[in-house]
Amino acid sequence: MNKVTMLPDRLMYPRPTLLVGANVDGKPNFMAVGGGGVANGEPPMIGVLIRHHCYTLKGIHQNLTFSVNTPSRDLVREVDYCGITSGAKVDKVKVCQFKVFYGNLKSAPMIEQCPVNLECKVVHILNLGSHSFIIGQVEGTYVTEGCLTNGKPDVHKIKPLIFNLESAEYIAFGEVVAKGFSIGQELKARE
Amino acid sequence: MNKVTMLPDRLMYPRPTLLVGANVDGKPNFMAVGGGGVANGEPPMIGVLIRHHCYTLKGIHQNLTFSVNTPSRDLVREVDYCGITSGAKVDKVKVCQFKVFYGNLKSAPMIEQCPVNLECKVVHILNLGSHSFIIGQVEGTYVTEGCLTNGKPDVHKIKPLIFNLESAEYIAFGEVVAKGFSIGQELKARE
Repeated sequence: MNKVTMLPDRLMYPRPTLLVGANVDGKPNFMAVGGGGVANGEPPMIGVLIRHHCYTLKGIHQNLTFSVNTPSRDLVREVDYCGITSGAKVDKVKVCQFKVFYGNLKSAPMIEQCPVNLECKVVHILNLGSHSFIIGQVEGTYVTEGCLTNGKPDVHKIKPLIFNLESAEYIAFGEVVAKGFSIGQELKARE
Repeated sequence: MNKVTMLPDRLMYPRPTLLVGANVDGKPNFMAVGGGGVANGEPPMIGVLIRHHCYTLKGIHQNLTFSVNTPSRDLVREVDYCGITSGAKVDKVKVCQFKVFYGNLKSAPMIEQCPVNLECKVVHILNLGSHSFIIGQVEGTYVTEGCLTNGKPDVHKIKPLIFNLESAEYIAFGEVVAKGFSIGQELKARE
């Protein structure tokens, strides 16, 4: 067998590139998160991991709400900036020129320039070691009108980013490989 | 503002395409999972969501171990097949011709043909509604030798798949957009 054993690591492909938002002491702040994902189907829930010292986490504890904003590739500079700076020291909204809006929850700031925005209510906060893992129920979903096709979010218009930790690269989505719930039918003949 | 309000939904980009493995009644089985992600850094943890009725979940409860296998795009037929069939009815290992191996945990079956394999010990099982969300600590990490560059996993050789739920498409990784922890420096001048 041609396998190399490595130290236990969280090798996950793809990782997302997300901007997680919270109001900290009443002011909106956003951090870059390159992990987490869908946690439940119905009701819809998302999980994100945040290091304990992060400024955004303070805001999540204050309000028990947060937002998950999906940036398009046009925002890669802003995303990276939000990942290498702390809201304790700079006003990221001002530097990045984010237009902030709020939804039903009133306390989860969202970024108008990001094509997809979810506002979430905290369901669980787990201390798993280096990070808190926060599971939020999606209470509001907003999509930029130009990123819809026939009323549905269109990933080819949203142009999200993959974050690849090993190479520290932001990667675009590529071509469609196959249709889901379909191509696997070919193997039914082998049953 | 040009935002369209939609019903609350788990709009997450990118979603992974994973094969989650467990021994059910002593026999290896694998299911396709298109959600979850990294849950913690140190120790490394991964979370996956599984509907309560799924056959694989039975095996996770039996052993409190599971595996997370990242298929390359060459395995898209097999992945989709594992997503549209149940191990309660067919022997997916046989149909997909998976070569199964085990690591330190002994009870988490892994697929040799998948370039990246993680064996995990269950830390939490949360019932979040339609799905159980299972958080596992990575206890073993295996990478196919040909997918390493300078001893590190190389995503451009691994060729993982994105799963896009809205269009039911498997999507490849595309081009590198920017370098992380770097391009954001350009905005420092605005502080």
